[in-house]
Amino acid sequence: MATALWKTPAQREQERALKREAVLRVAAQAFAERGFHRTSLDDVAERLNVTKPTIYHYVRSKDEILFECVRIGLERLDAAAASAQARRSGGSGLERLMVLWTEYAHIVTEDFGRCLILVGEDPLPAETRKDLRALKGKIDKRFRGLIEAGIADGSIRACDPKLLAFAAAGALSWIARWHDPAGPLSVDHIARETIGLFVNGIGASHLGPECCSDSDSAKAE
Amino acid sequence: MATALWKTPAQREQERALKREAVLRVAAQAFAERGFHRTSLDDVAERLNVTKPTIYHYVRSKDEILFECVRIGLERLDAAAASAQARRSGGSGLERLMVLWTEYAHIVTEDFGRCLILVGEDPLPAETRKDLRALKGKIDKRFRGLIEAGIADGSIRACDPKLLAFAAAGALSWIARWHDPAGPLSVDHIARETIGLFVNGIGASHLGPECCSDSDSAKAE
Repeated sequence: MATALWKTPAQREQERALKREAVLRVAAQAFAERGFHRTSLDDVAERLNVTKPTIYHYVRSKDEILFECVRIGLERLDAAAASAQARRSGGSGLERLMVLWTEYAHIVTEDFGRCLILVGEDPLPAETRKDLRALKGKIDKRFRGLIEAGIADGSIRACDPKLLAFAAAGALSWIARWHDPAGPLSVDHIARETIGLFVNGIGASHLGPECCSDSDSAKAE
Repeated sequence: MATALWKTPAQREQERALKREAVLRVAAQAFAERGFHRTSLDDVAERLNVTKPTIYHYVRSKDEILFECVRIGLERLDAAAASAQARRSGGSGLERLMVLWTEYAHIVTEDFGRCLILVGEDPLPAETRKDLRALKGKIDKRFRGLIEAGIADGSIRACDPKLLAFAAAGALSWIARWHDPAGPLSVDHIARETIGLFVNGIGASHLGPECCSDSDSAKAE
């Protein structure tokens, strides 16, 4: 039918949102690979096979793109942390934290999360950095809350929630810096092993025969 | 005596080295605080209370300064790792690793190490980045060697040395990103607690009554 040649306002709106997301995603990839300062809007346009004026239909500036990429990465972490907090019936505090940490590893190795970790808000003007830092503070608070819940329900040993939250964030964020998506290790595998190190500890001494006996304790002798 | 008015060549050489180090250190501080691209050589000169031409007596360019700052940070990590490897009589693999991790935390929170973690080699041209990445690879290898030694002597549980090396590097490097030197927590305290999380694990379950009994086990119930 001829009417199919004209899009409805809703279709136009949706298409615009998809195209804007494509611009942001391709820019996030370029920033993470080449660095923010080495990437021009011409580079982003070239990757999308469009002209630079086309990019300006969707964003006002390179700064706005980076702001949005970092914001989206942070919003995903915040959403994951909020849903872990809401999942009160989802097991112990430690179990909910382990699910969240796995999601964290996936988020920071995807386009927007990688851009958040590898580029971050540092290149942006002070005013916009402030908004992103406030969002970071909110996320930190959610992580600490979950850790406190785990200490309260006895699933997590007594420790400083702030230091545990930062240690895990560092270990998991670091994956974005060294992981090669074309390499042999999957993010899922790396996340599981890294989280396992935190949960079980690496010291073999408390697995000696005077303590638990399991398959690892033989190695401790 | 009048001869003291003239410096010997050795004194001049030493003074030059000290001044060059001061230029590098002040630049490392500025890069870490304000970012590499936002810092000009004029800013560095101003912090030193000298003119920009004076800076050029000691370094050729801003790129050379960053290269040197990152190289010095990496050399310090490498030296710490090399001496941990050499300390064969210094206890188990785990004990030597714990000493090294503590040094690591101190190095990455000092001027050159902070610059290494917060700025790194990314802003540099590809050619010079290569040299620094080779040095990083050498350091990684030393850490993995120590972890392997700890697994072999039974002080560290069986694990993937690469993943443990990266997890700890991430957790400890992250300190440079969040630690406020003017805040209440000392680097020594943060390092001890963070390393303790890795060594002992955070899971309370293996401390239950069917296993070791210690003061934490009551909380696990």
